[in-house]
Amino acid sequence: VSANSALIDGKQASAVGYTDRGLQYGDGLFETIHCQQGQPRWLRLHFDRLRRGLTRLQIAFDRFDALQAEIRSLAAGHPRCLVKVIVTRGEASRRGYAPCPDAVPTRIVSCHEWPVEPLTSNEFRVGLSSVRLGINPCLAGLKHLNRLEQVLAQQQMTHNAWNEVLMLSTGGRVISGSMSNVFFVGAQGLFTPRLHECGVEGVMRRVVLEAAAAIGVAVCEREISMAELTQVDEVFLTNVRLGVQSVTWLEGRAVHGRQFAQRLQRQIDATHS
Amino acid sequence: VSANSALIDGKQASAVGYTDRGLQYGDGLFETIHCQQGQPRWLRLHFDRLRRGLTRLQIAFDRFDALQAEIRSLAAGHPRCLVKVIVTRGEASRRGYAPCPDAVPTRIVSCHEWPVEPLTSNEFRVGLSSVRLGINPCLAGLKHLNRLEQVLAQQQMTHNAWNEVLMLSTGGRVISGSMSNVFFVGAQGLFTPRLHECGVEGVMRRVVLEAAAAIGVAVCEREISMAELTQVDEVFLTNVRLGVQSVTWLEGRAVHGRQFAQRLQRQIDATHS
Repeated sequence: VSANSALIDGKQASAVGYTDRGLQYGDGLFETIHCQQGQPRWLRLHFDRLRRGLTRLQIAFDRFDALQAEIRSLAAGHPRCLVKVIVTRGEASRRGYAPCPDAVPTRIVSCHEWPVEPLTSNEFRVGLSSVRLGINPCLAGLKHLNRLEQVLAQQQMTHNAWNEVLMLSTGGRVISGSMSNVFFVGAQGLFTPRLHECGVEGVMRRVVLEAAAAIGVAVCEREISMAELTQVDEVFLTNVRLGVQSVTWLEGRAVHGRQFAQRLQRQIDATHS
Repeated sequence: VSANSALIDGKQASAVGYTDRGLQYGDGLFETIHCQQGQPRWLRLHFDRLRRGLTRLQIAFDRFDALQAEIRSLAAGHPRCLVKVIVTRGEASRRGYAPCPDAVPTRIVSCHEWPVEPLTSNEFRVGLSSVRLGINPCLAGLKHLNRLEQVLAQQQMTHNAWNEVLMLSTGGRVISGSMSNVFFVGAQGLFTPRLHECGVEGVMRRVVLEAAAAIGVAVCEREISMAELTQVDEVFLTNVRLGVQSVTWLEGRAVHGRQFAQRLQRQIDATHS
């Protein structure tokens, strides 16, 4: 598995045209898919989110069958890997932000080694990013290619040797990690940020919400302030790579709760094994 | 002059590696430079803004001499053209938002025909976009590659046969056009939006501010609400392609003033001919 092996519009390739609007404007979407024994997990949820993004951006892409075959072909033979899918609006035939009606979307499917965990202990430390997420309901929830805020936030994370950074919106609400969604447990139970203003509607977030419903645990999706977080007993993050990841340290404070994360992880393992 | 002729890291090429962070995350910057008789105009201002962006994003690019030579070589022989420069953080050697310390920035220089004006009259119609600009001081002012908001705004512009759309921030302030900066003339004189929260610090905006200073016209950079715009006598837009462009119709209302745009254009022509 090499980061240089990719299928671009179905063909083995390593480069895209420089006029591609994915490069020119970040005009596209992506998905990162966990594959086990050659099988993509939660593919329906990934494709659902991709479809929502395509509709919102008005990108006329419908090659989901080809995409599925390409994902499976790259994942084949790997016990575990991440397959990244990018769909852009395609190459531009002219300058300017306005989409050309004749653009043909580009699809890029690449396979990546399952990351060796950098964790040397059971600690998972999450600091607060000073980089905030701009509010834009037009783009909220989508996994689009405009990711500079996450890039800047992860520069900070690396400098501080944190495992993840918590990000607020420019309106001061708690939204997510730079590469994960976040759940909290307080006196009123389980809660997670609403993502109508910014943030990505993660596939693992959806899996956790479904698992919680299945075991009868209510999850409140709502606006959350930083001040509330001093009161929480448990914090966990979700993405398809980390699964359900308990946080042991949040912005200067040890967090001890593990119970909800463990119950939800067990439910997910039982349902999706 | 073809949209397919580009210099990528100094070599004639038409494609970039798909792992380039410009494509993966919009992790880069661009400039669009007006060249006349083979000479780039306002190159110092373009390079100043590019440098500010590189510093803000912590991209270690310093090949300005090479860039300048490449711009001149593509512009040579063309009476008038646009040269677009993209600088990305370069190809990623691993997955994830965090920049790899060993990434070598990619530079892409392409030459584009001077656009034939689509204007069939002296009208220049500007509608109000329902797509707003997310507020983010970390990225405000920069001409970075995260341009989905502008893409969505121009979809609306095209549907309505407007020449440009006026964009507000998610905070409700007037910021800019989708591809231009904007100036207004009211009872208190000339004013233009502050760009500390969002928007691009345009090169032509800077040229206009310098021209105004040269002829003793004060320009107030400040927060502007939509309500104020019903009172303005003159509106003009700026970018390096349009120069100083008077607006004749703004969101349902004819605008008649031309005086400041003409004085400033004359001053710019006199200084930069």
